[in-house]
Amino acid sequence: MQWNAWGDGTLAKPLSEDITKLLGQILDLTPQSTPAPTVDQVTLRPSALSVDAHEALAAIVGADHISTADADRLTRAGGKSTLDLLRRRQSAPQDAPDAVVMPGTDTEVEAVLDLCTRQGIAVVPFGGGTSVVGGVSPIRGRFTSVITLDLRRLGGLLALDEVSGQAVLGAGLTAPEAEALLAEHGYELGHYPQSFRYATIGGFAATRSSGQASAGHGRFDDMVQGLRVITPSGPLDLGRAPASAAGPNLCELFLGSEGTLGVITAVRVRVHPVPAVTRYEAWNFPDFTTGAAALRAVAQNGMGPTVIRLSDETETGVNLAMTEAIGTDQVTTGCLAITLFQGTAEQAAARHELTRTALLAAGGTSLGEEPARAWEHGRFNAPYLRDSLLDVGALCETLETATDWAHLAELKTEVTAALQQSLQSTGSPSLVMCHISHVYPTGASLYFTVLGAQREDAVTQWSKAKTAAGDAILANHGTITHHHAVGTDHRPWMTREIGDLGVAVLRSVKKTLDQAGILNPGKLIP
Amino acid sequence: MQWNAWGDGTLAKPLSEDITKLLGQILDLTPQSTPAPTVDQVTLRPSALSVDAHEALAAIVGADHISTADADRLTRAGGKSTLDLLRRRQSAPQDAPDAVVMPGTDTEVEAVLDLCTRQGIAVVPFGGGTSVVGGVSPIRGRFTSVITLDLRRLGGLLALDEVSGQAVLGAGLTAPEAEALLAEHGYELGHYPQSFRYATIGGFAATRSSGQASAGHGRFDDMVQGLRVITPSGPLDLGRAPASAAGPNLCELFLGSEGTLGVITAVRVRVHPVPAVTRYEAWNFPDFTTGAAALRAVAQNGMGPTVIRLSDETETGVNLAMTEAIGTDQVTTGCLAITLFQGTAEQAAARHELTRTALLAAGGTSLGEEPARAWEHGRFNAPYLRDSLLDVGALCETLETATDWAHLAELKTEVTAALQQSLQSTGSPSLVMCHISHVYPTGASLYFTVLGAQREDAVTQWSKAKTAAGDAILANHGTITHHHAVGTDHRPWMTREIGDLGVAVLRSVKKTLDQAGILNPGKLIP
Repeated sequence: MQWNAWGDGTLAKPLSEDITKLLGQILDLTPQSTPAPTVDQVTLRPSALSVDAHEALAAIVGADHISTADADRLTRAGGKSTLDLLRRRQSAPQDAPDAVVMPGTDTEVEAVLDLCTRQGIAVVPFGGGTSVVGGVSPIRGRFTSVITLDLRRLGGLLALDEVSGQAVLGAGLTAPEAEALLAEHGYELGHYPQSFRYATIGGFAATRSSGQASAGHGRFDDMVQGLRVITPSGPLDLGRAPASAAGPNLCELFLGSEGTLGVITAVRVRVHPVPAVTRYEAWNFPDFTTGAAALRAVAQNGMGPTVIRLSDETETGVNLAMTEAIGTDQVTTGCLAITLFQGTAEQAAARHELTRTALLAAGGTSLGEEPARAWEHGRFNAPYLRDSLLDVGALCETLETATDWAHLAELKTEVTAALQQSLQSTGSPSLVMCHISHVYPTGASLYFTVLGAQREDAVTQWSKAKTAAGDAILANHGTITHHHAVGTDHRPWMTREIGDLGVAVLRSVKKTLDQAGILNPGKLIP
Repeated sequence: MQWNAWGDGTLAKPLSEDITKLLGQILDLTPQSTPAPTVDQVTLRPSALSVDAHEALAAIVGADHISTADADRLTRAGGKSTLDLLRRRQSAPQDAPDAVVMPGTDTEVEAVLDLCTRQGIAVVPFGGGTSVVGGVSPIRGRFTSVITLDLRRLGGLLALDEVSGQAVLGAGLTAPEAEALLAEHGYELGHYPQSFRYATIGGFAATRSSGQASAGHGRFDDMVQGLRVITPSGPLDLGRAPASAAGPNLCELFLGSEGTLGVITAVRVRVHPVPAVTRYEAWNFPDFTTGAAALRAVAQNGMGPTVIRLSDETETGVNLAMTEAIGTDQVTTGCLAITLFQGTAEQAAARHELTRTALLAAGGTSLGEEPARAWEHGRFNAPYLRDSLLDVGALCETLETATDWAHLAELKTEVTAALQQSLQSTGSPSLVMCHISHVYPTGASLYFTVLGAQREDAVTQWSKAKTAAGDAILANHGTITHHHAVGTDHRPWMTREIGDLGVAVLRSVKKTLDQAGILNPGKLIP
């Protein structure tokens, strides 16, 4: 992953001259006056790790697995939110961890946490570094130094139980690594978030990730059957059975704990046979309301698509304008919906037929396979487009929420208005697009993509817009995040999300597991 | 609910003379020498509630809604485990709460908890009183008195959102009351545990209940979208959206909390339209191994039966011998499986066809509709049979667990052997029957019914057998309880279930919410 942009630089998606010109007009873009610093020009705050601590950590993980080199610290300097990327483009010194430590075993994780507890060193657990909410920012908190605990060495398909359809995966495996290991045995996990190419299994669990196939395979938290967690107070092995009534479900305390309660080192997940076939069908709906009602019918009647998503009118129009033409006979008005069906040929056909009947009855018009295939082809590439947009002086960021079906339209309207008004107040036009990508019987997610123009101080400009959106979400029955997690950026809303007493509960659990408070300070728990 | 037996006395199922004689021979039953005390003969420990406390509680809930009368205390003297029923048959003084308090609003619940915190009075939240694990036993703990907080007045369909398919139900509603209220609007909850006729919505949430239609509608914890919980530290409103990544899922801390962390006063649940049709089909499998593999195929491929269950060879044989003949051409060897399919006619037909194909392919032989209809007809009556068996000197109890598919056979064998050996050591023959009633992609539940003969001290005799079974469960990858919850009876295994650190986490949450420790002492948390 590049230090100042998404993913692999060779996969960058520069904007065509036509698109740049069009966007320049629509968004009133101002070309960037000062070029962003290159890797040679970037300055990091110096490492504050003591020589003693360095030696003690090296004694635990081996001298090869600890680094204070700028090159290593820079790539763990933060996640990939637009705020992160804007900060990387500034010439001021960059925050960075004081060292990168890469443990190779659970025992080494335990020893590192023990040492850091005794010496008062903050610890940021780190997987793929794809957080878009500040979840891996190297915050020292009240400590004098902070290390990034990079978990990439905790890999491996640790166990595969084909009878039960479950596998134990090392937390440091990236999603493609995990899928490759499972595929050798004919199995698939089926978790495909946009961060798929870089994010890790442990990160998915720690953030309650949700993938594009959530309609078929569930959220990542649904897939988890058990967790191995190392805390400063000792290890926990959670999840004895597929379901239990033996008290509160403690797995659910560590799913979404974002490294603040412990370090997830292994995850037992539900797996299924690699699908034999995939069937595709795209749909047009005259408007978002009609389309959302159609998705609701599919979700409430359990018709079993693997993927189902619906873009609103703006997103449908912008996507058609900005990407290569999809098919030839595209409908350019209304809303595009995508459906995919996977499984055995019989399963996929049966589910396709049920869903098709429901979508037709709900006012959909089939657009055939092509737009659905095109979506699948490009589905991990949007973050590259954001980098290109930032390059030409645009603002581009996404945010997401979820609510019940009854409040969905109102939530969409209010969040859109809040974003538009906030950007307008900074002198920027805006385009606010939205799609539904995760459906449940009782509700759905809303995923917003916001385009604007960078003005004087883009970090403050976007922070203001984000605050307006967050307030609108909480005021309109939404959750502050459906699948991006909390990190630093959503932390201001946590008290409104779960109440003072909910926060007190999280603090009491943290106190029990991490008495010194070294684990990921400044994240999640207010 | 009768004080000393299940449910409604007029629905009792006395054993026929033939069956009694047969069981007497098989189990070597000794007729009861001393008759059990009648309600006039039973002695309760006297109420220890102070006059001050009585007056203060009456001031909160009204004088009509607090009672120290023996008749009221006796019906809240405990749950309905076999141990409870055996204790009720003893002539020694019975434990009983020092008062029964029936709050009518959340505010009253708050005030009662506040008063009891200040005065040091233990509080046992009480719904239908159907616990089979000692969950509502009136334990004083370190306090001088204990009240039962009967929640039956917190009823009502508090909200119905037909668009989202969710309803808010008062915690004190019994399941039939809730279904009747929903049915007026064309909706169903679909939660049918054996305790259906008496158990309450709050109790289902507090114990992670699982109903007979769990294959179709999920466990009760799956149905819950939100909870209102009153704790001594204040109220909590949990569950903002159908899914969220805003940290740990705190609903999951209160589901299964058994009244030890707070009092659940309202539950937001997923509901669905009352099914238009029900289709029935029963199956025979040559043996349990073949039948379990068939259920696994159905669960892992998501074929969507509403109910699917499989009795082992012993249960199949005993049920045929003990109940009225089911149909005429019954296969009396092998294992009986039951399937039900509900929904629209199209949904039910499609799911039936898929399941049918899978069961045929897996070695099943159809037995037609009748045995499935007969199962549905009698499905809530087994507890009555237990009372009749206790009457003739038999021991009869059930226990349950769950594990992954890979460990299911071994767990069944080991638990069966542990029960048989323990009862044998007390000079009792035994019949250990088992069925699978809840299936998941990665595993299933096992529900054991144990028949033996009461010897000298039946309470000790069964406690010993239960201990042997619990130890076998934990030693063989099982959870100590799949849907009966923990209460007093499973508490000795909680540390092995979730580890010392897991227990420490629960204790820290309890300390935050219930600093004085008044809530349901002696239950769940070791």
